Formats: sequence, C-alpha cells, structure tokens
Amino acid sequence: MTAHRLARYLPIFEWLPGYDRKALASDGMAGLIVAIMLVPQGMAYALLAGLPPEVGLYASIVPLVFYGLLGSSRTLAVGPVAIVSLMVATTLGEISETGSVSYLAGAILLAFLSGAILLGMGLARLGFLVNFLSHPVISGFSSAAALVIGLSQLKHLLGFDIPRGHLITDTLAHVMRHISQINPATFGIAIASFMILLAFKSRISPFLRSFGFGPEVSNAIAKAGPLVAVLATTVAVWLFALDQTADVAVVADVPAGLAPLTFPSIDLVLIEQLFPAAALIAIVGFLESVSVAKSLASKRRQKIDANQELIALGAANIGASLTGGYPVSGGFSRSLVNFTAGAVTPMASMITAVLIGITVLALTPLLYYLPKAALAAIILVAVANLIDFKTLRDAWRYNKADAFSLIVTFFSVLVLGVEIGIVVGAALTIVFYLWRTSRPHIAEVGRLGETEHFRNVLRHDVQTDPKILMIRVDESLYFANTAYLEDQLLARIVERPKIDHLILIMSAVNFIDASALDTLETLAERLKNAGVTLHFSEVKGPVMDRLRRVDFFENPDLGSVFLSTHEAMRALSNEAISQVA
Amino acid sequence: MTAHRLARYLPIFEWLPGYDRKALASDGMAGLIVAIMLVPQGMAYALLAGLPPEVGLYASIVPLVFYGLLGSSRTLAVGPVAIVSLMVATTLGEISETGSVSYLAGAILLAFLSGAILLGMGLARLGFLVNFLSHPVISGFSSAAALVIGLSQLKHLLGFDIPRGHLITDTLAHVMRHISQINPATFGIAIASFMILLAFKSRISPFLRSFGFGPEVSNAIAKAGPLVAVLATTVAVWLFALDQTADVAVVADVPAGLAPLTFPSIDLVLIEQLFPAAALIAIVGFLESVSVAKSLASKRRQKIDANQELIALGAANIGASLTGGYPVSGGFSRSLVNFTAGAVTPMASMITAVLIGITVLALTPLLYYLPKAALAAIILVAVANLIDFKTLRDAWRYNKADAFSLIVTFFSVLVLGVEIGIVVGAALTIVFYLWRTSRPHIAEVGRLGETEHFRNVLRHDVQTDPKILMIRVDESLYFANTAYLEDQLLARIVERPKIDHLILIMSAVNFIDASALDTLETLAERLKNAGVTLHFSEVKGPVMDRLRRVDFFENPDLGSVFLSTHEAMRALSNEAISQVA
Repeated sequence: MTAHRLARYLPIFEWLPGYDRKALASDGMAGLIVAIMLVPQGMAYALLAGLPPEVGLYASIVPLVFYGLLGSSRTLAVGPVAIVSLMVATTLGEISETGSVSYLAGAILLAFLSGAILLGMGLARLGFLVNFLSHPVISGFSSAAALVIGLSQLKHLLGFDIPRGHLITDTLAHVMRHISQINPATFGIAIASFMILLAFKSRISPFLRSFGFGPEVSNAIAKAGPLVAVLATTVAVWLFALDQTADVAVVADVPAGLAPLTFPSIDLVLIEQLFPAAALIAIVGFLESVSVAKSLASKRRQKIDANQELIALGAANIGASLTGGYPVSGGFSRSLVNFTAGAVTPMASMITAVLIGITVLALTPLLYYLPKAALAAIILVAVANLIDFKTLRDAWRYNKADAFSLIVTFFSVLVLGVEIGIVVGAALTIVFYLWRTSRPHIAEVGRLGETEHFRNVLRHDVQTDPKILMIRVDESLYFANTAYLEDQLLARIVERPKIDHLILIMSAVNFIDASALDTLETLAERLKNAGVTLHFSEVKGPVMDRLRRVDFFENPDLGSVFLSTHEAMRALSNEAISQVA
Repeated sequence: MTAHRLARYLPIFEWLPGYDRKALASDGMAGLIVAIMLVPQGMAYALLAGLPPEVGLYASIVPLVFYGLLGSSRTLAVGPVAIVSLMVATTLGEISETGSVSYLAGAILLAFLSGAILLGMGLARLGFLVNFLSHPVISGFSSAAALVIGLSQLKHLLGFDIPRGHLITDTLAHVMRHISQINPATFGIAIASFMILLAFKSRISPFLRSFGFGPEVSNAIAKAGPLVAVLATTVAVWLFALDQTADVAVVADVPAGLAPLTFPSIDLVLIEQLFPAAALIAIVGFLESVSVAKSLASKRRQKIDANQELIALGAANIGASLTGGYPVSGGFSRSLVNFTAGAVTPMASMITAVLIGITVLALTPLLYYLPKAALAAIILVAVANLIDFKTLRDAWRYNKADAFSLIVTFFSVLVLGVEIGIVVGAALTIVFYLWRTSRPHIAEVGRLGETEHFRNVLRHDVQTDPKILMIRVDESLYFANTAYLEDQLLARIVERPKIDHLILIMSAVNFIDASALDTLETLAERLKNAGVTLHFSEVKGPVMDRLRRVDFFENPDLGSVFLSTHEAMRALSNEAISQVA
C-alpha cells in the first residue's frame, strides 16, 4: 500500500513526513492556548452533562489523539462541547439519578454507541445523511439548545437548587418565587467571572496593543479569559473560605491521575434504550464538526472528506468511552481559537492532549476551591453566540416556509426536548419540500418578439397561437405532482375549446417516474378524446433515454417530440401568429 | 344560494332537474344488474371481513343513497369491496374474536371513524394527500392483498378450518399437511361455482349472441353469473341436504328486516386503537374509488372533484355505521358494470339500494342453504384481476427504483400485513425520491455549432472555452443536495487550474431554498478565493424574484446574471473558441 493510499485512510501520513521545527513551534503555541481554554471548559461542560468535572478532562485527552491520527481536518479541535453535553444530560436524566454510578456508566455507553454509529456511517459512506438537516432547522435547534443550556446553569449562578422544569416558563416561575434564596457570594462570583470573561473577549486585546504588544501575543492572551476567571475566583474562595462561610458550591475533590481503562457495559436493554439518543448525538456532533472543519479548510484551500470525518470522530468517541470520558465532537469556538492561534497540523491537538494529561496527573488539587459559578459563567458566555436571529430574519425575507420550520424547530426543542425537537424540524422540512414539489409552477409561454425565446405570458408581452397551448412545467414529474399536473392541463383545455395542440415544454423536467409516465399516457389519451394532440419539446437527454427505453413515443395518441419549442411552434402553427395583449 | 352554488355541494342538483323517463329506464336496468351482482358479493365480502353476511347487505343500502346525493361521479357504485373488507378483518382480528359482539361493534366503529376521517379530509381539502401513494406501490399493494384474500378463502373452498398463519408459507404448509381433511361436497360446490362464474364471464355473451340476442341483453345476462352460481349451489345444498349429510358450511339464518339504527360506541380506548387502521382504510378506499371514478368520468367528459368525493364517501361510511354496516368504498368491477349497463346518473345506485332493501326485507329465508364455498368462489374470481404483473414488468424496464418499491410493498404486505405494508411502500418511495433529488444530474455544457443552443459535452460535439466552465444543474437547489452541488463544483474547479469563470445555468432550477442560498453565497466566496468568478444564466422568473428580494446579486463575490448562456459566453469569452474532442 503506497504512502498516498495510506494517507487516504490515515491523513497523518499527509503531513507528518514534511513536519519541521517551524510547524512544531506554531502548533505548540496553538496547543497551549487551546489547553488553557479547554481545562475549564471541559470541566464546565462535564458539569452541564451532569457528570463529575474530571470526566470532561478525561474526554479531552485520548479523543484528541485519535482524531489527530484519522481526521481530515488539520485544525479541528475535538473535545466536550455544549450541545452534545446537554443532549447527554437530557438523555441520562430520564434513566438514572445524576451523580449515580449508572449515570456515569450511561455516559460512557453513550460515547461508545455514538462512536460506533459514526464509525459505521463513515464505513458505509453515509456522510450525505446530515444534508437532510436544513440550515434553518440547525439554526432553530442551536438557538433553543443555547437557551436550555443557559437555564440549566441558573442554579449554579444563583446558588440555589432549581428542579429541571419541563417548560422554560416553569423554570423561570420557580426562580422568581425563590429569588430570595439567592446565594449572594455565589452570585457575586458569577458576576465577577462574567466581567472578566467579557473584558478578555472584547477589551483586552486592543488594550494590550495600545501598550505596544504584537497582535499575536495580545490575541493569545485574550484567549486566557476562562483561565483568569477560574484562577481569580478559585483564589477568592480559598482566601475567604467561601465554601465554608458562604457555602459557595465548589468543584471540591478531583481525583488525581488518569482514569482507569473503562469498558462500556454490554447491557442490551440499556443499549436499546440509549441507541436513538446516541444516533442523534452522533449526527449533531458530526454536523457541528464538519461545518466548522469545512469553513476552516476553505480558508487554507484544504479539503474535508465527510466520510473520513465520520471515521475520525467515531474513533475519538470510542476512545473517550475507553478512558472514562463522554461523547465529544469538534467544537466551533475552540477550533476557531486553534486556527487563529496558528495551528497548522493535528499536532496542535496532540500537544493540547498532553497538557491536559499533565493537568489531570499533577494539578487537580488546585481545582478544589474552583467555584461552579465560574464554570457556569464560562458556559453561558460560550453558548451566548449560538443564539442566532440573523438566519430567522433572512429566512423570513427569503422563504417563509424555511422561517416557519426554524420557528417550529426552536419551539419543539424548548417544549419537546432537544432530541424530539430536531427530529420534528427535519421531518417538517421534508414535508414542506414534498408539498412544494407536489404543486409545481406551471407557466403558459409565448414567443418573445421575433426571437427563439419563449417566456411566461403573464410576465412578458409575447405572441401565441389560439390553436396551440404551450405549457412549461417547472418541476420533475413524479407520483406526488402527477395528478395535479393532469388536473391543471385538462382544466386549461376545457377553458379553451379552440385549442388543437398542447406542447409540454420539458426544459425543467429532470426526471419522470413510473407514476408520472402512466399519467402522461392517460393524459395523451384523454386529450385525444377531447380532440387535442399532446406534443413535447426540449426533453432532456437522460429523460429522453428512459422514455425511448419503453417506446413511449410509439404511442399513437401522442404527437411529436421537438428539439426546441421554436421548431414545435413553426411546425404546428399554420395560421398567422396573433398578438396577445 | 343559487342552484349552481347548491350543485357544487349537492351534485344531485346538477342532474335531477333535467331527469326524464329515458334516463330512468336506463338507470333502472343498470340498478337491477348491479343489485343482482351486489347481493352475493355483499354477503361474500362481509364474510371476508369476518362479519355475518347480512352486514354486507346493510352496507349496500344507505351508503349508496348518501353517495348518490353527494358524489361527484355519476356512475361510481359504492358498497363493500374486497381490499377494505380484508383490512377490516386484519384490524379487528387483532382486538377481538371473530363473530363476537365486540367484533361487530368494532366494524361499525371503523366505518364511523373512516367516514369521519374522509369527511374531515374533504372539508380540509386534503384530497391531494392520496397522490403520495405512487402507482407501483398501489400495484404491489393490490397484488399482495389479492393473494392474502385468496388464501383467506381457502378454508371455505376446501371445507376445513385453516388457522390465520402469519406467513403465506405457513398457511400453505398447513393446507398441505391437512389436505386429507378436505370436504369433497364443499370442494365440489366450489369447483362448480368457479365453472359457472368463468363461463358467464367469458363464454355466455357470445353464445347468446349467436342465438340472435342483442349485445345489451347478452351482456346484461352475463353479469348474472354470481346470482346463477348462488342459486344453483343453494338449490343443490337444499335438495340433497348437503349441510346435514356432508356438512357443507352454509350461510344459515340471515335475520329478516333492516338493521335497527346502530350507533358507534364512544369507547375512547378502542377509538385510539382503531384510528390508524381507520385512516388507512379511508385512504385506500378513497384511492380505489377516485381512480375508477376518474377513468369512467373521462369516458363521458365528466369531471371528478376529489374533495367532493371525500365528502361523499365520508357520508356513505357514516351512513353505513348508523345502519349496521361496515366500511364501504367505490368498487372497481362493480362501477364498471354499472357504467356499461347504462347508468347515467346516481339514480341507478339508489335503485340498487331499494332492491337490496327489498332483498333484506323479504328474501333472506331463501339464503339459508347458500353455501359459503360459492361466496368464496365469487370473491376469488373478483380479486383475481387485482393481481397485476404488467406494472412490475413496465416499471422494471423503465425505472428500477419504482420496480423495487413495488416489490418491497408486495412483500411487506405479505409479511408485515396490509396496513404496515402500504405505509412501508409509501415511505420507501419518498426516501427514493429524496435520495434522487439529493444527488442531482450535473452536466457540463458547450455551444452546439454556431447555434445559441448549449448541450452536454458528454452527449454532443460542442465548443467550449478553456477559461470558462459552464455547468447546468438539473434539479432545484434545496437543503438535501446543496452540499453535494458545492463539492462537485469545487472538485471540477480543482481539476482545471485554467478556469476563470464558472457559469451556473439555472434553466432547470425551479426553486432555491434558504439552505441552498447560504451555500451559493459561501460557494461564491470560496470560488473567488480560488480566483474563479461565479456567474448565473437563464435564471427563472420566480427564482429571480426571490433572489432579488434578498439583494443576492449585490454580493461583491458574485459575477453577473445573463438572460441566456449564449450572452454569457459572448461576454466572458475573450479568446478564440477552441474545439473540444
């Protein structure tokens, strides 16, 4: 097997041979910055998923290495992400108690299942399946998910327990009623964290540059916001023993050392129970990964192979399930950071993995006083930019059906939950599509001046022949629209007793299925009974081949087939062409 | 409300005013012939549905009158039909014992529910929904249903009990094992009935004509086959007391008189249980009715209003549920008989109803000795012509996907049952359609000689410009195919470093949804990064309007929009056009 063939399956062979010190330096910097960002994020997302914080760190080591070996993207940063963590929480929340052993086992099994599903889809080359999620559906889904995530963090920000309400309104009502229970210290820490995070996000980089720091350095430092927030609040809690005096919830003991090798439990009942959720987690995670990977790749003329991505993410998730982790995927903001921080190869991710490994081995004691409120603040700032109004506004102006499916998806996610919500959205877009293609646009056309162009009589001032009806069908003919077409044409014929010829212009017909073929045959017969001959023009090559295969044009009820509508009109129009107002 | 408006809702006002003696004579004859055919058929189908024979007669009175008042078809003959009866049997077979009171109550409830569903669909103008059942699916469904019906009659033909096997093979195996149990007298009656039925079907009419009878009379007499078979076998059983001596199963006591007014039980659990089946029964029944109604109407230049048909069939089924009947629909062969026997208005059906009413009131005692084997034979001869190989053969030659969905539907019905079977078929055709439209035909075109026509470079010897790539996409652009299109185009650009301009020919693009719009924008940007300008030509009016609405063409990454591809080429091609082999 040549290096080229090998590289197709193990993309690492594309870049490793030519790897040099310069690349290492640049990957090293990116790897460090992502690690600094990922330690707090990983723990935060693990908490969001209802898991102990260290699970987020475990999920940020081996998966990154596996993706680095197999992924077709050079800069995608894999690890725990917000939406997938939320989906894990909602899935496991229904089957076992948060914090229980079975809950953790469920998370590991979810990682294994979604990994297996991704791997299977990749080997079966089913990458195209994600295309059936339309952009508006994804937008509505993300916005709603971000809201749900935000609400799920309220309890950490306010410092009192909030039962998982089924409806947003329930949760908000509960908060309003119990607002007196707010824990001032916790809330203060949350506010402080927000201020630090937002300051680093927008203010710090220009500030540093004004002191003559280079843009690279300034931007690199700006990425340290989460770390600074974590350090500052941790120190504050430790100094004033806020966990004792003001009972601020802290991360507390994080076991040192890597997780022992874990194996997903082969509990068939549980597997059957978790499978649908695992499939959705796999698809949603893949979707986020591949969209960010594509947009980054295009910036450097690199190519993303969707099926290779499925395999790489599948391996990453299986890796997570074997090392005490939970489902991972390519993170949007994190990959952007990795890219802008100068990552040129997956080596950056591997360096990140090593640094996280060191953290887990040596630095966990420092995390004891880390307040959960700070992690919640990090989550909120991260998911805030998932809320997307622009797509809705654009869709509303462009195509109401798309806007409608966005809105329905949004509310389905809020009311029915993330899993059902996205399925509802996807189904709805398919229904809309079928509905639209089932009642195609049918235009009567006429000749544009003395040209060979034929245009819609309603849109242009064209010439027609009272004995000839020229109809352009703007859709492929298939079972769902064939009856509609027949009714439309027969109705027009009934309106115009003078018509002798009906020319069907097929320039927009890309396919005719068996049902439509039957209908065309009966239509030809019924038209003939009504004294009208059915002709065709501008039939496409592939369509023509099929029709010839069944001797369609041998049909005695049928008129002729013309290469162009102009020819058809010249052949059939025997009287002076009359102007139509 | 004018008579015209009135006629729109009560079609009877279209024909009743001008009704004369001549029409009455012709309707009377047709009504009589259909009644003679319907008495045995009605009882046979009731038995097929697992119901007492009189229920089939009850279902042949009021429903016919209601349809006659509301139906938009002049000649559709409503009543018990084979497939709907089978669906009733399979549905009720799962929830209660054949012959039990709850079984009958279930049948009445089914009639009411499917009537309500049809009525609701009609008022909501959802007639188009049936278009989502493709012809191959319907063909596969009917063939399989006919087989299942035939097998269900074996026990009546052979005279020994056959348990309802889940698989055809089980049933046949059982028959083979117990063939010794065959009841000779019953089997003889079955054979005799077959011979009478087939003789009347094909031989009798020419035979009579050879004796100088007119064609009308001969054909009319030919329709009496079922009646003759029933009379002959009944007399035989009565003469030799075969029910006692050779225990031939007979219809036995049929209660005289009309059924008391029945009301569907408002058992919500049962309603929820039966609703899906009721919906499918409604759709399948409607489908059969409307297809036969359409083909008959077109023979006489009459029009069928699908939504009016839904209302009329809904009323007919509710009528059935109120008078001890079970679900009805328009029968194919029966309507054909009605039509050829000279029915000109629904008065024919009303006359049939009156005659059936008289039968129920006065003639039921004569039915005591009627052998079930004769009725089974009538069913078999009736469903035999539902088995349809032609559609499969044609589909196989024309479009494998259609043939495949026909086959899958056929076997799903046999293995999974009629209800699930037809759903599987419908879902499969939709999946195939989405799959096809998700990977559209993309043709690179060139100029045909010195004409203004542009054709596929693979199919014609055309001229192209090495700096210009002209691509025609043969499909509307929507979420499912937009990623595929992008990959295809970018791949072609990578292959051809010399390309400066990409012209997308939109003549076959009938719609661009929001997802595709996003993709076109990112595509334009990525092409520009690659030094290629994206242009459009032959954009359709409706598509253009939408794109203008969002200022799509203001996009600086974008090239120009040309009315024709010829213009585009003239504008962009600055060097001598080079010949392509």
